[in-house]
Amino acid sequence: MKAARLYEYNKDFDVSVRLVDVPDPEITGPSDVIVKIGGAGVCRTDLHLIEAVWQDALGDPALPYTLGHENAGWIEAVGSAVTGLRKGDPVILHPLMTCGLCRPCRTGYDMACEQGKFPGLDGTDGGFAQYLKTSDRAVIKLAPGTDPVPLAPFADAGITAYHAVKKAMPFTYPGTTAVVVGVGGLGHFGIQLMKVMTPATVIALDQSRERLDFAMKLGADHAVLAGDDGGVGEILRLTGGRGADVILDFVAENNTPEYALKYLRPARGGTYIVIGYGGVVAPTTLDMISKEINIIGSIVGSSAELTELMELNRQGRVHISATTFPMSEYYRALLELDKGHVLGRGVLVPDF
Amino acid sequence: MKAARLYEYNKDFDVSVRLVDVPDPEITGPSDVIVKIGGAGVCRTDLHLIEAVWQDALGDPALPYTLGHENAGWIEAVGSAVTGLRKGDPVILHPLMTCGLCRPCRTGYDMACEQGKFPGLDGTDGGFAQYLKTSDRAVIKLAPGTDPVPLAPFADAGITAYHAVKKAMPFTYPGTTAVVVGVGGLGHFGIQLMKVMTPATVIALDQSRERLDFAMKLGADHAVLAGDDGGVGEILRLTGGRGADVILDFVAENNTPEYALKYLRPARGGTYIVIGYGGVVAPTTLDMISKEINIIGSIVGSSAELTELMELNRQGRVHISATTFPMSEYYRALLELDKGHVLGRGVLVPDF
Amino acid sequence: MKAARLYEYNKDFDVSVRLVDVPDPEITGPSDVIVKIGGAGVCRTDLHLIEAVWQDALGDPALPYTLGHENAGWIEAVGSAVTGLRKGDPVILHPLMTCGLCRPCRTGYDMACEQGKFPGLDGTDGGFAQYLKTSDRAVIKLAPGTDPVPLAPFADAGITAYHAVKKAMPFTYPGTTAVVVGVGGLGHFGIQLMKVMTPATVIALDQSRERLDFAMKLGADHAVLAGDDGGVGEILRLTGGRGADVILDFVAENNTPEYALKYLRPARGGTYIVIGYGGVVAPTTLDMISKEINIIGSIVGSSAELTELMELNRQGRVHISATTFPMSEYYRALLELDKGHVLGRGVLVPDF
Amino acid sequence: MKAARLYEYNKDFDVSVRLVDVPDPEITGPSDVIVKIGGAGVCRTDLHLIEAVWQDALGDPALPYTLGHENAGWIEAVGSAVTGLRKGDPVILHPLMTCGLCRPCRTGYDMACEQGKFPGLDGTDGGFAQYLKTSDRAVIKLAPGTDPVPLAPFADAGITAYHAVKKAMPFTYPGTTAVVVGVGGLGHFGIQLMKVMTPATVIALDQSRERLDFAMKLGADHAVLAGDDGGVGEILRLTGGRGADVILDFVAENNTPEYALKYLRPARGGTYIVIGYGGVVAPTTLDMISKEINIIGSIVGSSAELTELMELNRQGRVHISATTFPMSEYYRALLELDKGHVLGRGVLVPDF
Repeated sequence: MKAARLYEYNKDFDVSVRLVDVPDPEITGPSDVIVKIGGAGVCRTDLHLIEAVWQDALGDPALPYTLGHENAGWIEAVGSAVTGLRKGDPVILHPLMTCGLCRPCRTGYDMACEQGKFPGLDGTDGGFAQYLKTSDRAVIKLAPGTDPVPLAPFADAGITAYHAVKKAMPFTYPGTTAVVVGVGGLGHFGIQLMKVMTPATVIALDQSRERLDFAMKLGADHAVLAGDDGGVGEILRLTGGRGADVILDFVAENNTPEYALKYLRPARGGTYIVIGYGGVVAPTTLDMISKEINIIGSIVGSSAELTELMELNRQGRVHISATTFPMSEYYRALLELDKGHVLGRGVLVPDF
Repeated sequence: MKAARLYEYNKDFDVSVRLVDVPDPEITGPSDVIVKIGGAGVCRTDLHLIEAVWQDALGDPALPYTLGHENAGWIEAVGSAVTGLRKGDPVILHPLMTCGLCRPCRTGYDMACEQGKFPGLDGTDGGFAQYLKTSDRAVIKLAPGTDPVPLAPFADAGITAYHAVKKAMPFTYPGTTAVVVGVGGLGHFGIQLMKVMTPATVIALDQSRERLDFAMKLGADHAVLAGDDGGVGEILRLTGGRGADVILDFVAENNTPEYALKYLRPARGGTYIVIGYGGVVAPTTLDMISKEINIIGSIVGSSAELTELMELNRQGRVHISATTFPMSEYYRALLELDKGHVLGRGVLVPDF
Repeated sequence: MKAARLYEYNKDFDVSVRLVDVPDPEITGPSDVIVKIGGAGVCRTDLHLIEAVWQDALGDPALPYTLGHENAGWIEAVGSAVTGLRKGDPVILHPLMTCGLCRPCRTGYDMACEQGKFPGLDGTDGGFAQYLKTSDRAVIKLAPGTDPVPLAPFADAGITAYHAVKKAMPFTYPGTTAVVVGVGGLGHFGIQLMKVMTPATVIALDQSRERLDFAMKLGADHAVLAGDDGGVGEILRLTGGRGADVILDFVAENNTPEYALKYLRPARGGTYIVIGYGGVVAPTTLDMISKEINIIGSIVGSSAELTELMELNRQGRVHISATTFPMSEYYRALLELDKGHVLGRGVLVPDF
Repeated sequence: MKAARLYEYNKDFDVSVRLVDVPDPEITGPSDVIVKIGGAGVCRTDLHLIEAVWQDALGDPALPYTLGHENAGWIEAVGSAVTGLRKGDPVILHPLMTCGLCRPCRTGYDMACEQGKFPGLDGTDGGFAQYLKTSDRAVIKLAPGTDPVPLAPFADAGITAYHAVKKAMPFTYPGTTAVVVGVGGLGHFGIQLMKVMTPATVIALDQSRERLDFAMKLGADHAVLAGDDGGVGEILRLTGGRGADVILDFVAENNTPEYALKYLRPARGGTYIVIGYGGVVAPTTLDMISKEINIIGSIVGSSAELTELMELNRQGRVHISATTFPMSEYYRALLELDKGHVLGRGVLVPDF
């Protein structure tokens, strides 16, 4: 089959990622599942993988491997112990292959599985290909007849936003304000989910007016342009000087953490949730205590959370904005994302 | 009456703090309470106040004012609307004077009162004096006949440790490990409280062997000397490489935050609670998310928490280690604290 | 002034409640507040008070006293220690007069104040009158220019529904179903609040088709007529046999608890929240454990919750359906309520 | 092999349960595990099974089947997909065989697995035998060299008490009182666990002075004999009239629920946790709301909870009191339990 694989860390996407022929994956274990890819989301993390940002954190995975960690499609084949899944069933995949036996798996945090594999990320082959091999625990069935292609971004962008929103929930009540930083693939879910799941007033913050218009259509209560002061002045104005009770930072690089600490409410338990990466957050410990701040990291989400999110989508309460590209044009998709030209999320569709 | 007041920001305690005569406080409002000081704890924050560390965070309070934010004694006089308190009742004081009407006061976070005054800290006269004026909301009655003098440190050191331990509780279960950084006035409560309130294994971390011996007597399961590597190696060894699930950092200056991030468990939700101050905590956002870290500021505690803590003391489950100084020797008490010579907490007792 | 007072326990409302002249209330304490009543809600509890249902639970209060525990209006006069309130300010009143000093008051549960008085309920004079005396802690200011009259039902019906919905929140996630039993004054808030505050699918259950139509307009996802089987069959059908994850029973008399236990989901933690009263709930302990059921009582709500609720109303997210009656026609209002003829909530408006 | 199997519902244990020869269990699936039984606890639920109390709730399981749902021993054989377990490893078994795929399994409630089998209870063969077949998900490894025999009661009595204590934890703080009803196999764990996991004062309630002496040795703060008034008067006296904040009722039959509602604190959120069964709990809905009571069912516990509990045992913080019987004398063990003659828990040890 055809697959787009990461060969070397190089900002020139034509050099780093190559479309090559590889053997089709095969069932070898009783819990194996092979999925025919319908759509594979293109994520800023793909750019970061190519840039070697994750190389150390992932333990320097062996190259090449197939990218693509946000996948949906149809069941193609299953192992002997798999029940309830048939060829042709539309499915979306939790991004991790998990053991089911460790404490995280048993306590609702399977995204932190101690034996977890992360196709498309840690050297395990991902979904920029015709077929993907995963395990039965990663499969979430969609309603019969569902088209999985445009849903792929729920598998990572969606679940990551959902997990962060769940962390934000305890800090919201009517009258609180949440700032969603970055109206990209994740942020566009974040805005919708904050409105569905919490009573907070939602301010979208971005550098692009086009994205802010998009944010308002998604349900944001206010949109703030991150100008020279990173939006600090306008957010303080909108909140009557109180600042944001909760921040969901889907960017978290350059100076966004520094600005965030400036518009985070200074009294009792302002909560700054970090979902993006690439920067440093560096409060003084005096600020940490005198303002009693929480800074909370958030990554991916559990398989149960993905199921909940798909239910919200099924109910029509959370929508997706996806732009499809033929998979053979993965280069163009990566480039457009890098330039910030994709509204919502880009999805690769196999055209082989 | 005599009072030790802060006159200027100056490391020479004889210059900065002066024992002077001031008028006795008087009842002027219906909720006023005047307490005859039995004991007033000496806190590292007193040193930091003298060093102007808090000057900005407190809005540059007018000098001079009387220090002493950790007070216990006996009721001397009460305003017309105060019920249930009589002259001679032994009491301990919540460190804040709170309004009772704002949201924090109404939702269990009165230490974040929007109208709060903090005697001994924000320019309001504190307890390094014969008498202190506060409000009825700050008063917690002790059992009749109780000697309030040695209990004073519960009012701030105790409550601050208790509040932090409450924040740690949700992250502990049997098999988890908590590191208590700094076995000083706060840490000596922190160790005991972690053992009483949680099932975590407790590791005490300090630079002094004497303090570590003290920690073991207080119930710590392990004691680690913060040597060249800040204790990182030994903590990783004791936890089988897993790292600490929870850290309560009562120091949080110099390089303790940097070390803490190294021995914090790298998987799913290691929680670093900052109670001390003076330094900076500066994780990369990649570390925040890939390790899904929580960094949580904690300061003081609520009046309900102080009541709970005094109940634990009454039951004999949390003890205090206090060294008393005559209040006229406040200079010596500050100096000994500065040199790290006080085990547990120093308490000034009026000798006028 | 004129006041409608409860003179004796008697189902004939003209005998039990009488409109009489009483002295105007006066400021006597520093925290006193006198409110000119704009509107006073009429509640099923008023009927129950008249029927002596509460006589024992309230400690047999001395008669007569003025009814009316759901009040809004304008500030008329304040005591010497009251700040921030001026004559003419529109306000809504938390139903309890609370001490602010006990543990419930200090921990966010002031509706359980250990010294609390409940005007209109426990013998303290309520708001079926031209003026009501309460304390500053009970006053929640409305935005300048707000008409408080139609908002009165938020003070008790609203807050009681809100408090119950807060208890329901931890048990909801996308895919769960909540049943709201009874689309009366409380239920009409309950339906709206469940939709705003939780991601649950909401089923309204009532004996009246008119009320069910009303429920659908309020945002219910489904409406079920409580016919011969109490709606059990239809609820099980709508939930695919799973049953309700959460029930908010605003009726809780006759056989509604019995039916509720039949459509409560039988697996892991179905939660039955009791807000109405008049009946008995009597599960076997075998059912309690084998289905791992929660049965949770809920009453009124805190002052902070009332503030949150008013914010939702201000934002236009929760509406009120109120029918006004001249206060002199209190008899007719009670009668209509008793007959189930009031959609939403009845409000008495002083016409003296 | 020899197995003690339930043949018919009959109070005469010699008739209902018979020691017979059955074929040894065999590995048939990739996740199968066969355990050589070291010890199998004898539980009041065994008596209830024999009495047909569970017949309906369990869907009328086919007889005969082997009793014994509280098992520990050594690995005998494993299926092809099982890793990390070797013949001879000492293990304790979570009582359920769970799927790992349903929502309860994925969210930390595997004891509510939608596909779960319960050996010794629901018709699946249990541990009153030489060997037991379960699945890898049910196996919790003990430290090498551990003797599993006396630990068996942790598998059900222990975990059930632990799960209930976890439910009690949010309702405890220093100054609260918990009543543990019934100092039998479960209660003897409950008392210890309440002391280790919470700061509550613990009152043990039982009909037997011998059991109450036992309770005091286990760490109870007070022991109350359930005399004519079910202990109501003494509990109210010990709590200064406040009543119990939390009740863990390990009996929950006859009139214990009725008494419990009498000594449950009448103000704000008294919590009655039902773990035993056989009776009815029947509060009025007026009591439910006016006292704002919680009634919470609790059953078994999750596999993660069993792991936590075994860690507490390993640390020496929770002890077990077990009386062993040769398995061939199962009749005597059941009889002694029925008569209330076993202190702590009885354990059958294969003697074949």
